[in-house]
Amino acid sequence: MKTKPAETWTFAPIGAIRTSFKEKFGTPRQPGLAANARGVIELNRGEQLGYACRHLESFSHLWVIFVFHAAFKEGQPWKPMIRPPRLGGAKKVGVLASRSPHRPNPIGLSVVKIEKVDLSDPENARIEVSGVDILDGSPILDIKPYIPYAEAIPDAIGGWAVTAPEQHPVEFSEQSLRDIEARVARHPDLKRMIAETLAQDPRPAAQRRKFERTAEATQGRRFGFLLLDYDVKWKIDDQRFVVLAVEDLVDGKPRTLAKDRL
Amino acid sequence: MKTKPAETWTFAPIGAIRTSFKEKFGTPRQPGLAANARGVIELNRGEQLGYACRHLESFSHLWVIFVFHAAFKEGQPWKPMIRPPRLGGAKKVGVLASRSPHRPNPIGLSVVKIEKVDLSDPENARIEVSGVDILDGSPILDIKPYIPYAEAIPDAIGGWAVTAPEQHPVEFSEQSLRDIEARVARHPDLKRMIAETLAQDPRPAAQRRKFERTAEATQGRRFGFLLLDYDVKWKIDDQRFVVLAVEDLVDGKPRTLAKDRL
Repeated sequence: MKTKPAETWTFAPIGAIRTSFKEKFGTPRQPGLAANARGVIELNRGEQLGYACRHLESFSHLWVIFVFHAAFKEGQPWKPMIRPPRLGGAKKVGVLASRSPHRPNPIGLSVVKIEKVDLSDPENARIEVSGVDILDGSPILDIKPYIPYAEAIPDAIGGWAVTAPEQHPVEFSEQSLRDIEARVARHPDLKRMIAETLAQDPRPAAQRRKFERTAEATQGRRFGFLLLDYDVKWKIDDQRFVVLAVEDLVDGKPRTLAKDRL
Repeated sequence: MKTKPAETWTFAPIGAIRTSFKEKFGTPRQPGLAANARGVIELNRGEQLGYACRHLESFSHLWVIFVFHAAFKEGQPWKPMIRPPRLGGAKKVGVLASRSPHRPNPIGLSVVKIEKVDLSDPENARIEVSGVDILDGSPILDIKPYIPYAEAIPDAIGGWAVTAPEQHPVEFSEQSLRDIEARVARHPDLKRMIAETLAQDPRPAAQRRKFERTAEATQGRRFGFLLLDYDVKWKIDDQRFVVLAVEDLVDGKPRTLAKDRL
């Protein structure tokens, strides 16, 4: 059996995932960090994929192998070293020693919890999952059941990502609570989703480095991230993260100028 | 962000893995089952992949995303249901509810232990790993550090694959011990590797069904599997697995007729 590593492999997605994360910033950096973050894996119609999911419901967790489609830019070379957010952007590590989406092959891997396997129409299978850290619309290449006896290795050493990232205290302004209340019928879990996302400091590493959470100049500074169909505005105030407002997008974009979003 | 699930994605492997498993039968069905099974991930030369591995050694375990290249047959349609070996071939489950290589996209996922990250020549990076269940020569699409806080879920429910498969008692004939001794300079761990592989009953599900381990007619029956450059002959005897002989391959093939191998 000869290897031809130069040979390429072409895969057609088996479906796509729907999540509340519309942009990279705000998307949890590891699955399970935002336990409440729901998603739906919609498998392609008419390809017998529902039959291929039979008995999947006997497992509690699922591996999702997907394409980092937003990170992929045709013809753009990948960089061997990156600055992981967990190291505050201060230190460079090899991209293959990280979970960054900017990899030689932009393939993502996430474990999610299975909430419901809906095979009522086997030609239109849907799998509801939680603990999702995947961008909305990501193409799915494969799903696999999680095998705890082989894959749960609690004493594995996590390099520079030993423990779950710090959770920051989050507060809501009165305006933001009104904004959320007005949207509660459509998204009953909106408040909790915002809190879970913001607690992880969704800012890119460069921004976190430039505006350190505890720095004098950062206090009162305003930021924004997209979640579901909303632009969430927030500020850093005395080391707390304060949600200021939740605004609808206009044509899929935030209403405020790019300058305000840094 | 619009999804086009019909769009295809093409990936060039970043390297290949060298293992002792030359054929599907005999290859452990999950990583970690043959803790001693070593492999070497050889990353492509001249693509800066050594730099991309910097600080990988600070992690103990690694995800390997690879192509089931031996399972892939151009133009051959996949089947939605399969008979997993763990269920003795008696029951069908959906292929996406299994870890079978015969998937819509033949992508494999295995966690392995990092033994050594050799970046002494960054243009020729090599990662020595153990607990491997991957066929020799498999093209590698991506490697990622294992993140225990997010990925070790010991209380996950493993469906029909709840516990590690049964380990069968293995014995060695005097002939086989002589055969192994004669090859010990080249493969010091050969005996242990054979024992670990055979303990899992490497026979395909159909064969295990036809010749049940405990059935009268199976006693004394001879089987064979390939490991490294060797053909390992063994028999089932009073429910024990007895290694009979370890023979060199001739032109990469076992010397005995196909009939003897069933």
